[in-house]
Amino acid sequence: MTIQQKTAEASSDLDLLDRYWRAANYLSVGQIYLLDNPLLREPLRPEHIKPRLLGHWGTTPGLNFIYAHLNRVIRALDVSVIYVCGPGHGGPGMVANTYLEGSYSEIYPSIARDADGLRKLFRQFSFPGGIPSHAAPETPGSIHEGGELGYALVHAYGAAFDNPDLIVACVVGDGEAETGPLAASWHSNKFLNPAHDGAVLPILHLNGYKIANPTVLGRMQDAEIRDLFRGLGHEPLFVSGDDPKLMHRAMADALDVAFASIRSIQQHARDGRTRVERPRWPMIVLRSPKGWTGPKEVDGKKVEGFWRAHQVPVAGCRENPAHLKVLEDWMRSYEPEKLFDEGGALIAELQALAPEGTRRMGANPHANGGVLKKELKLPDFRSFAIEVPQPGEVVAEATRELGKFLRDVVRLAQHRNFRIMGPDETASNRLDAVFEATERVWMEPTEPYDVHLAQDGRVMEVLSEHLCQGWLEGYLLTGRHGFFSCYEAFIHIVDSMFNQHAKWLKVTRELPWRRPIASLNYLLTSHVWRQDHNGFSHQDPGFVDLVANKKADIVRIYFPPDANTLLWIADHALRTYNRVNVIVAGKQPAPQWLSMQDAATHCAAGIGIWTWAGTEDGKGEPDVVMACAGDVPTLETLAAVDLLRKAMPDLKIRVVNVVDLMTLQPREQHPHGLSDRDFDSLFTRDKPVIFAYHGYPYLIHRLTYNRTNHAGMHVRGFAEEGTTTTPFDMVVLNELDRYHLAIEAIERVPGLATKAAQVKQQFRDRLIEHSRYVREHGEDMPEIRDWVWQNRAGGNTPTEAGD
Amino acid sequence: MTIQQKTAEASSDLDLLDRYWRAANYLSVGQIYLLDNPLLREPLRPEHIKPRLLGHWGTTPGLNFIYAHLNRVIRALDVSVIYVCGPGHGGPGMVANTYLEGSYSEIYPSIARDADGLRKLFRQFSFPGGIPSHAAPETPGSIHEGGELGYALVHAYGAAFDNPDLIVACVVGDGEAETGPLAASWHSNKFLNPAHDGAVLPILHLNGYKIANPTVLGRMQDAEIRDLFRGLGHEPLFVSGDDPKLMHRAMADALDVAFASIRSIQQHARDGRTRVERPRWPMIVLRSPKGWTGPKEVDGKKVEGFWRAHQVPVAGCRENPAHLKVLEDWMRSYEPEKLFDEGGALIAELQALAPEGTRRMGANPHANGGVLKKELKLPDFRSFAIEVPQPGEVVAEATRELGKFLRDVVRLAQHRNFRIMGPDETASNRLDAVFEATERVWMEPTEPYDVHLAQDGRVMEVLSEHLCQGWLEGYLLTGRHGFFSCYEAFIHIVDSMFNQHAKWLKVTRELPWRRPIASLNYLLTSHVWRQDHNGFSHQDPGFVDLVANKKADIVRIYFPPDANTLLWIADHALRTYNRVNVIVAGKQPAPQWLSMQDAATHCAAGIGIWTWAGTEDGKGEPDVVMACAGDVPTLETLAAVDLLRKAMPDLKIRVVNVVDLMTLQPREQHPHGLSDRDFDSLFTRDKPVIFAYHGYPYLIHRLTYNRTNHAGMHVRGFAEEGTTTTPFDMVVLNELDRYHLAIEAIERVPGLATKAAQVKQQFRDRLIEHSRYVREHGEDMPEIRDWVWQNRAGGNTPTEAGD
Repeated sequence: MTIQQKTAEASSDLDLLDRYWRAANYLSVGQIYLLDNPLLREPLRPEHIKPRLLGHWGTTPGLNFIYAHLNRVIRALDVSVIYVCGPGHGGPGMVANTYLEGSYSEIYPSIARDADGLRKLFRQFSFPGGIPSHAAPETPGSIHEGGELGYALVHAYGAAFDNPDLIVACVVGDGEAETGPLAASWHSNKFLNPAHDGAVLPILHLNGYKIANPTVLGRMQDAEIRDLFRGLGHEPLFVSGDDPKLMHRAMADALDVAFASIRSIQQHARDGRTRVERPRWPMIVLRSPKGWTGPKEVDGKKVEGFWRAHQVPVAGCRENPAHLKVLEDWMRSYEPEKLFDEGGALIAELQALAPEGTRRMGANPHANGGVLKKELKLPDFRSFAIEVPQPGEVVAEATRELGKFLRDVVRLAQHRNFRIMGPDETASNRLDAVFEATERVWMEPTEPYDVHLAQDGRVMEVLSEHLCQGWLEGYLLTGRHGFFSCYEAFIHIVDSMFNQHAKWLKVTRELPWRRPIASLNYLLTSHVWRQDHNGFSHQDPGFVDLVANKKADIVRIYFPPDANTLLWIADHALRTYNRVNVIVAGKQPAPQWLSMQDAATHCAAGIGIWTWAGTEDGKGEPDVVMACAGDVPTLETLAAVDLLRKAMPDLKIRVVNVVDLMTLQPREQHPHGLSDRDFDSLFTRDKPVIFAYHGYPYLIHRLTYNRTNHAGMHVRGFAEEGTTTTPFDMVVLNELDRYHLAIEAIERVPGLATKAAQVKQQFRDRLIEHSRYVREHGEDMPEIRDWVWQNRAGGNTPTEAGD
Repeated sequence: MTIQQKTAEASSDLDLLDRYWRAANYLSVGQIYLLDNPLLREPLRPEHIKPRLLGHWGTTPGLNFIYAHLNRVIRALDVSVIYVCGPGHGGPGMVANTYLEGSYSEIYPSIARDADGLRKLFRQFSFPGGIPSHAAPETPGSIHEGGELGYALVHAYGAAFDNPDLIVACVVGDGEAETGPLAASWHSNKFLNPAHDGAVLPILHLNGYKIANPTVLGRMQDAEIRDLFRGLGHEPLFVSGDDPKLMHRAMADALDVAFASIRSIQQHARDGRTRVERPRWPMIVLRSPKGWTGPKEVDGKKVEGFWRAHQVPVAGCRENPAHLKVLEDWMRSYEPEKLFDEGGALIAELQALAPEGTRRMGANPHANGGVLKKELKLPDFRSFAIEVPQPGEVVAEATRELGKFLRDVVRLAQHRNFRIMGPDETASNRLDAVFEATERVWMEPTEPYDVHLAQDGRVMEVLSEHLCQGWLEGYLLTGRHGFFSCYEAFIHIVDSMFNQHAKWLKVTRELPWRRPIASLNYLLTSHVWRQDHNGFSHQDPGFVDLVANKKADIVRIYFPPDANTLLWIADHALRTYNRVNVIVAGKQPAPQWLSMQDAATHCAAGIGIWTWAGTEDGKGEPDVVMACAGDVPTLETLAAVDLLRKAMPDLKIRVVNVVDLMTLQPREQHPHGLSDRDFDSLFTRDKPVIFAYHGYPYLIHRLTYNRTNHAGMHVRGFAEEGTTTTPFDMVVLNELDRYHLAIEAIERVPGLATKAAQVKQQFRDRLIEHSRYVREHGEDMPEIRDWVWQNRAGGNTPTEAGD
């Protein structure tokens, strides 16, 4: 049979499809309202109604309509489709449909396909101990939490990349369409290659209203909508109306056209004969009433086709008999007796409308990506080690070394299951070795002088952190791997997306059927201390504070101080799953401290004493602990030790370097946390600790407030003082420089301040001289630029910490 | 003269305009490169070159081109125009132009309009102690920091609202155009009323490249661009090319058409005869080469018209004589000797091209909004007081009461200088009393059944936190007032915008010529504890953690526990300036604790002992302090006290309520911080403190880690456990409920645990019973729902704290 014949046959009975849709609508209403009497086999009574009516009806009938029609196409064409439900408030619809097709009961057997299962299905919705009101990790077939709006389309594209046989149907609500991330997501089609990637079919669902307002796109005329989406590279197919009969016909036709168009685009791109050009992809614009098929009016006020249908169209059904009747009439209008059999199962004739097995959208393995995940084959990171004969002897750019490692990760990723995201910054962040192995994806025209652009690249660059993050989330959630490098300050742009992804991970860890997915790995570079070109707007190290708020088993924060530690940490991060790993590391030339062997020991522990850097004599405790986390703070700390060592050779200084910030937390709060005993053995119980930290100092206090020696911890970090200036002037402005650190050490060691008054004054004078010099010459003093660590000794003493 | 005649006259000498443009370009290059020899009166030598070359050339010539052409139109038409510079990296261009027109030297007299001033102008750029490399608060005429991209257009609209005589020319770079917030900002035209608002003229500057990539929009064909922007409600006027002569003519024509079109739209809308319809606004699409007029090639590699022109097109000019020559040839190509006179001033003929006085874009008062700011006339908030005869006797919805106050703020705002923003949530957040005084702005068609929509409303609702935030920022920065109510969790969407605004405020406070602007006031409601409909994705109280990272003189965080305290705080916030005030308050019915008089005393102090709630006898110290911040934690704390009082009448409990979170910080760190003595007198020096906090508990630790009794502080808050459940179940899941609080109090008071073992067990049993009950009935136990505070006593003892 040809596609056309198949399609014609499959669409022959739209009346059956209408009944299937009614069944889904019925189940959706039941979930919002009913505790019992799920099949209305007795008159509806107040005690059948939930005491708290919580849920969103408005968007649901449209979502059900789309689901039922996609089922038809999937069966007709035998295609692999997943459903990304942007209007996730329509959770009842997603649950209803996966229940109808059977995938729900397979995952949750207690919600069986019978009358008792129906009762439980209704009851659990938005009910204590039950399921949330949105499409969520608990929902089969979902890769998209439907709470925070804006990310449906970008998730859909992330899922489609490198999945040539997958079609991602993505419903975009007209509320969501007003958000920034969604508005930018339309440009994702400039990065999708029809030859090697799957397809995204956007279905813009214009039901006209948000919570209490019309929507911007809902009120735009068709002509403007058509212009807009043609401008965005789509050919919109309009399906508009409220008469189900006409709408079924129109929707079936539109989907037939859309799927045929996708197939044609793909065949053309895959025949290998022509250069692929960015095609005009189909999309559907569905205009249907909000709360379609629900009560037209309640208490004389318009409900169907208006924002009053948004949540619970008719409230107080327990108390108000008239409202109870509205509800009962509404539910009975779907004729449940014609939809479900004696036992409460969907009648066989309707069951036959659902696809089978993994073709069911609730059972498509792409929507439970861990099932499909293949481990990355990683190169041996040790082979990228920088030779560090003595600490500080070699200068290197940490991220440039990492780039070589990532290049080989790309080369070894035979499953086309690894991508690198960056907002136009892969080269700026000095990861450009990856371009020896791959290019940037680019589907628009190229010029002869363009470099590193290709239709089939592993690097994705767009000037939108939202798109980078969303693509990567979609890619990971469908079982692949990735790496996101970003300017440190601008990762705040995706704070909220990070939050939602971390929440998703937290919940999926509690769902055994959701298989683990690869971790979301961030490299934050071009960081606060080295924004020489950009200044204050580019200086914000606060993302990790947000990250530290999340559940301990989800998040990791690393501050590798040099290239070899960065390599170790990156390798480690790429091997983990169901986590968010945040790695903060600079890209500028900087002294290298640890050989790969020392780096491995140090990183495995996460924290350790750098004995070679300190001036302890091994007898008893030091006078002062100089702790550091982050590359620049490490450099300044070592320079401070150097100053102190020369000025006061008798002062016993211990240097502690922290790579894994979570080691600072109590072991009870984080699996990487040090025991109090280990912590005390590093930081002492009562000696002053001068802690140079990369970010806002409060984070260190909040992680350590319960430690024995917390009162002795004096943390310096970013004090929100920034501008375009020299690297050393930046640390001086924030009093994180070697002189301030050394002065504080002198002041904190009991009795030293008087004895070393002259040394202190000498350091203060250097600060004044620095200030004068830098303002005159526009660069740092030679003694700063030329400073190198010269003390020669070996080894570091890490403390064991788990992973 | 007609407009046409004026315009024709003004555009008669485009050659002069070209020379003006060359002067701006010359000054831009000079800023990036030169320490000395600013007029090239001697051959360029290495020592004239800055040691560190920092800045962005690529976008600058285009920005200069636009600036010069806007000058022409401003003079021809005598219009008020400000320039929002999206590609803010082009800071040298903004500085050059304000210098040329004279506004720069008026603000910074040391940068005079002579050779020495030129030298200083060049030297200060991106130089330690000088000015940043971007358009920034330091830049005259700017309301827009050009660091983080995405907010130019939304700022422009914010500036245009309620400024009928203002035209905001907004340059959108093609890099920025890829971001989400910018992509959504185009829809702002659906909220701009040509009758009462000013106009925004978007100038999409397609120079084709980002840091290292072509741009998405830059590579789109004109036909697609035209469709896209027509779909977005604009009529694009294309100006494309690289021949300056032709480009000047084309740009002049395009601007003439655009300004005529704006005037025609406005006249039509303002003649009062017809209903206003959303017009198709003009916009300009300017395609010009990146790094236009700069070196074509350097070392055989393409620079002009390519991304290599992004920052410093030719580097190493101190070391490399060939590069030095490239630079010198480039600079001399502008013929500085024909642009500047003997003394180094711009020649009079060219000076005459700039507008005069406040028509100069660098001196337009709208871009220094504090100059124009009129104080809000506020109603007496006391007149909205809820009667609270006894604590807990009355139930009310705090935000609903606030809505009445805001309604009257709207009524009294005679200068049309107050707007309320909300992402479709003003009614959902129960501020709907404002609709008695005004409507939502809506320029699209309306239906007969629509409610509270009007072309001229004070409430702005769009489902984009980015737009709400950006509009409000633009509105405040141009001297008006506003209020932003938002779901607590989703304010994280604008974390990064908040960061940038706070940075802007921090810098403007250091610039005496920048007059103070009204504070940015957030109401965070629909908060973490009452997301009954929505669950985990809507539960995140972490925004305040981010806020607390900012400079102390910029930020305030308030947790009013009831309606009267909320009224006091809101009134206070609206009277402040140059701050960000964050107010967190619930919208659900809740017991009211304080009369307005008590609320005023309590809020003025920011923190206080609620003696009526405690069980102290006035002799000596309490056994335990129960502290609380936030409405739900306050409720649970009082309920816990109630439980303990009944079970253990002898236990001496002190209740401390915190409204102003910053009182917890040391006085040295925050102007609202309590002195240690005051802090100790509230929290004792050594008694256990059970602190029930609204958000993530770490924030309390980080604010108090230096306090005497920090070791005694046991903080409970949101533990990242959430779902769709009952209000009480939410606090139980996070162990913030009355039983857990009471149990911890028992456990922390020395010796009590054994004595009160039975009481503890009784509380534990109630938790088990709760869990059983809620899962069976779907609502909270009657003893929870019906609980009311019954202890009768009076007064609270606040501790003095600053404003």
